[in-house]
Amino acid sequence: MNRPRFPQMSQAALIEELKTLVEPGKVLTDADSLDAYGKDWTKQFAPAPLAIAFPKSIEEVQAIVRWANERKVALVPSGGRTGLSAGAVAAHGEVVVAFDYMNKILEFNAFDRTVRCQAGVVTEQLQNFAEEQGLYYPVDFASAGSSQIGGNIGTNAGGIKVIRYGMTRNWVAGLKVVTGKGDILELNRDLIKNATGYDLRQLFIGAEGTLGFVVEATMRLDRAPKNLTAMVLGAADLDSIMPVLHAFQDKLDLTAFEFFSDKALAKVLARGDVPAAFETECPYYALLEFEASSEEVSNAALELFEHCVEQGWVLDGVMSQSEQQLQNLWKLREYISETISHWTPYKNDISVTVSKVPAFLKEIDSIVGEHYPDFEIVWFGHIGDGNLHLNILKPDAMAKEDFFAKCATVNKWVFETVEKYHGSISAEHGMGMTKRDYLGYSRSAEEIACMKAVKAVFDPNGIMNPGKIFPA
Amino acid sequence: MNRPRFPQMSQAALIEELKTLVEPGKVLTDADSLDAYGKDWTKQFAPAPLAIAFPKSIEEVQAIVRWANERKVALVPSGGRTGLSAGAVAAHGEVVVAFDYMNKILEFNAFDRTVRCQAGVVTEQLQNFAEEQGLYYPVDFASAGSSQIGGNIGTNAGGIKVIRYGMTRNWVAGLKVVTGKGDILELNRDLIKNATGYDLRQLFIGAEGTLGFVVEATMRLDRAPKNLTAMVLGAADLDSIMPVLHAFQDKLDLTAFEFFSDKALAKVLARGDVPAAFETECPYYALLEFEASSEEVSNAALELFEHCVEQGWVLDGVMSQSEQQLQNLWKLREYISETISHWTPYKNDISVTVSKVPAFLKEIDSIVGEHYPDFEIVWFGHIGDGNLHLNILKPDAMAKEDFFAKCATVNKWVFETVEKYHGSISAEHGMGMTKRDYLGYSRSAEEIACMKAVKAVFDPNGIMNPGKIFPA
Repeated sequence: MNRPRFPQMSQAALIEELKTLVEPGKVLTDADSLDAYGKDWTKQFAPAPLAIAFPKSIEEVQAIVRWANERKVALVPSGGRTGLSAGAVAAHGEVVVAFDYMNKILEFNAFDRTVRCQAGVVTEQLQNFAEEQGLYYPVDFASAGSSQIGGNIGTNAGGIKVIRYGMTRNWVAGLKVVTGKGDILELNRDLIKNATGYDLRQLFIGAEGTLGFVVEATMRLDRAPKNLTAMVLGAADLDSIMPVLHAFQDKLDLTAFEFFSDKALAKVLARGDVPAAFETECPYYALLEFEASSEEVSNAALELFEHCVEQGWVLDGVMSQSEQQLQNLWKLREYISETISHWTPYKNDISVTVSKVPAFLKEIDSIVGEHYPDFEIVWFGHIGDGNLHLNILKPDAMAKEDFFAKCATVNKWVFETVEKYHGSISAEHGMGMTKRDYLGYSRSAEEIACMKAVKAVFDPNGIMNPGKIFPA
Repeated sequence: MNRPRFPQMSQAALIEELKTLVEPGKVLTDADSLDAYGKDWTKQFAPAPLAIAFPKSIEEVQAIVRWANERKVALVPSGGRTGLSAGAVAAHGEVVVAFDYMNKILEFNAFDRTVRCQAGVVTEQLQNFAEEQGLYYPVDFASAGSSQIGGNIGTNAGGIKVIRYGMTRNWVAGLKVVTGKGDILELNRDLIKNATGYDLRQLFIGAEGTLGFVVEATMRLDRAPKNLTAMVLGAADLDSIMPVLHAFQDKLDLTAFEFFSDKALAKVLARGDVPAAFETECPYYALLEFEASSEEVSNAALELFEHCVEQGWVLDGVMSQSEQQLQNLWKLREYISETISHWTPYKNDISVTVSKVPAFLKEIDSIVGEHYPDFEIVWFGHIGDGNLHLNILKPDAMAKEDFFAKCATVNKWVFETVEKYHGSISAEHGMGMTKRDYLGYSRSAEEIACMKAVKAVFDPNGIMNPGKIFPA
């Protein structure tokens, strides 16, 4: 891959040229903007962009990309900057292309159940729009209030409803992208069936802006779910979680099957603002959700619960009887991330196939526990799709530097174990800069070579979000 | 794209070399085999392969591809050869690589609901296997008894349940492929969530073997559907079909929404072996299917039916009350293709977004009717996903040559109308040789250039199924 090379031109001259490509006032270079737009939710890289450009149209994005090719200036796309892998960090004098002003919902089609959006539409904006139409946009996660559709597509965002609805990929009917060469491609024409050669749309989903920028997307909507009902179940042990999932999945169409450990629950309950689901203490908990669309479904859920208790898999459980109870049960799961942030956690987002989760989790527990017995490990995640969020809390007495140094060692063990279990070192957060050097743990040398060659097809000058995904 | 060039070596010498790469007796060159394995369900190309090779392992496939690179011999993959676009035709001295002996189901995982299959597993074999496990493989179509998983993936097969379950793409958890360079890639590790760079798996789905050959696939299964129930509704006119779809889709999770015209029905009823759904004659019919999982669902379906009658959209209808009735209603739709084959139909498989179907269909009707008033047009298809099968029957009195000459003109009108409606010239049958020269009606010049460059990444010598997808 070609690396971007700054030309002989001065930075000031580059900025002046850039200003001619967008509307007046739509290039920012002040220190606060450079700092804000140069980083995402990861904090370990110092932001250092050259400038922030705010295009208002596809043509302006295209003009910026063509200019960047000519000047060999690197570009970084910027959506809600809620990423956790530094995919949207500009730390090396790049021009940030921010989609804040391309935030309109352009078109809705009730028969097709599609919404055409500009890249900067915020996830929650799309969710709310869908609700106003009596429909549903099902991809949901903690940062939905800030993340943008373009970024969701760039990272193929997942979240809490994947077991039923799949990833963002499933909801992209069509895409408009500006490639790294500056071509505008309209991909898939919003069709359900289209067998006319390679589905290039799929390449741009999850490419983290390294092939080109998503500028517009037609997203599918689903019918609104009916009477969503949650159960929280306390499992006897880790190995009981799988047969519980299996039993429920056999009879019900689950919309979620989440999981958290006693340690995670204890932290959330200690806040004092969320009621406990029940008194019985269990080592692991599952939160499952389904549409109680008829009494038969609710009865089936209760029968399944009883079956799981009889089998000794489940020690206690509760089922929501109201919207308020549903919300409260979800808080037990959703508040974990925010609650444990106080402990400066080492975080890792990994996945294996569902059936391998218990063995994998135990192995990580045992490796970390053996070497660092004073580390508290908090597990939670989307166990119904094999996606685990590993969190190791910093012991209060340990200095940050010491903790992070030890975590670097943990990182290696984690990735080696992921490789052993044939899993993914990034389940849903992407590679960005934080995981790029570990790509080889999840993709073969031949695959990486193909990926680089594919990048060169769309971005021959290597100007699109360089230094992301691929090892430096 | 590089075109394959035959080397100086004699054909006999090439065949001798090829024989060393597979087990004894697993290269055929007799006339019957060359004829049988050189063609698919399209009949307009004369089969002329050099030889048929039957590998029994991934390593043998790899050896053949490496040898073909060295000798610059073109390869054509061969599955069930049920394609309708000549994607598996070997008409120019290619070596056919047939997957008949790689037909084993290798592994089943109940928790992951996945089945690892060799490429040559027949679709029905997978469907039956799933049923034996109490599960369901939902991709279904007329040729399921012969088509193979590798071919399904190569064409991203669709069929009659796409409205609920999506295309083959949705069910591919992981792939093993041998690329045109001879590399073995294992793509996606069967994971649900995997955000480690470009999802190359998606590129191989629908690539018609032009990037490499699918040698193994891990397919997902779903829970078995409950109490499938069909309705056949007679629509007052074409414009009534969309509000009927909309009304039903709003309240029920449809597993199918198929459509056929009075002319299609008349042909099937004339066979005498299928009972009519009801007496009322209507210009168009919809067949919809859903899981009547509770009495509430059945009641909702009946209420929807009454609503559609009140609105004047539907003139008559019937709902299946037994498995036998379900089968009989489906026969009204499924027998169409076979029944009309007697009239040497001109066939075309096209799609537009769902909401555009009525206007699109009327425009084609009007163009064809104006120029060729003696042509009988039979429409049927998967209207719930925008996929229409256009069939024009040869008038009895017209000579075949005359009919086909006129149909060539029709082809142009159809593709121009598809382009006008921003649709796809191949909804689910692929491009193969029959549609390659029309690719520009559905994909831009820039897209085609990108596709060719992507092909060159995986198949630099242009030996993988050359002459398919791309204009000659």
